[in-house]
Amino acid sequence: MVQNEKQLDSQLIYDGKVVKLYKDEVELDNGYKTGREWIKHPGGVCIAAVDEDENVYFVEQFRYPFHTALMEIPAGKLEFGENHRECGIRELKEEIGAEAESFEYLGCLYPTVAYDTEVIHMYLARGLSFGEQHLDEGEFLDVKKIPLEKAFEMVMNNELPDSKTQLAIIKTYIKLKGEK
Amino acid sequence: MVQNEKQLDSQLIYDGKVVKLYKDEVELDNGYKTGREWIKHPGGVCIAAVDEDENVYFVEQFRYPFHTALMEIPAGKLEFGENHRECGIRELKEEIGAEAESFEYLGCLYPTVAYDTEVIHMYLARGLSFGEQHLDEGEFLDVKKIPLEKAFEMVMNNELPDSKTQLAIIKTYIKLKGEK
Repeated sequence: MVQNEKQLDSQLIYDGKVVKLYKDEVELDNGYKTGREWIKHPGGVCIAAVDEDENVYFVEQFRYPFHTALMEIPAGKLEFGENHRECGIRELKEEIGAEAESFEYLGCLYPTVAYDTEVIHMYLARGLSFGEQHLDEGEFLDVKKIPLEKAFEMVMNNELPDSKTQLAIIKTYIKLKGEK
Repeated sequence: MVQNEKQLDSQLIYDGKVVKLYKDEVELDNGYKTGREWIKHPGGVCIAAVDEDENVYFVEQFRYPFHTALMEIPAGKLEFGENHRECGIRELKEEIGAEAESFEYLGCLYPTVAYDTEVIHMYLARGLSFGEQHLDEGEFLDVKKIPLEKAFEMVMNNELPDSKTQLAIIKTYIKLKGEK
């Protein structure tokens, strides 16, 4: 049986720039008591930006936990309480310098359900027009474009490991195929 | 330009049961210095277990960060250095009491590339035979089965938010369709 978990106590362990870590004491329906470590995250948004020739845009950037550069679709972290659609529109402009005529919701993902509140919202951006990149201080990334068909194959062949990128590419590919 | 990041210093901030949090000082190729908070995680494995009638098996369990029960495919955390295939076989047995004749690799995902080393490996298990569940202490979950076609629709309709579940279901659905 699924057991609900009631919060008895909550302690902020570390209040970082990216990671806000808590340790709670919880009680299950059956009286069992245990600890729960969890990270409070404002959530994020990612954008599959597809141009008229069905290319999809990637940003390549160094990801410290993996000590390597990874290919991802444009994405950004929300401010706590920020509207994810507005954040997506802003990040697309900042990271690849693009504005979109249409910005369609593709659903969300919970990357790390066991210990992190993060939710990432996915959008499909079409009708692109390009201006200049406007990166944050300390943000360095390269923009690349890949045909959507090829990107889908790369996901299926395990060549694009980032979770949000995989899901948004697959959902975009299936959606665009359905429209034909 | 992508900038590599060189570790200058690393500090263990919190050594928890689930979360091992570090704060490092890094230097970019261009001399820019900054901090990086990151979580060291041993990684995990998840299993899309499909029976002869093309049902896929789920476990429903309370997920504290979301204060609700979520539907996920069977999954587990590796020990540091553990073989993910062996871990997957064990978790399938523990969580839904099943053994599989075939256990095929579907690729991996990086759920949280910005601040967490977690990698989740995905498997497709077929040729299932069922025995008893053997849950860990303090682990409570309900097993449910859903037709694969229906599970795929639920992913596309944003009804199964867990990232590993979405990806493994979609990859399984595409693979099985390709075999027909």
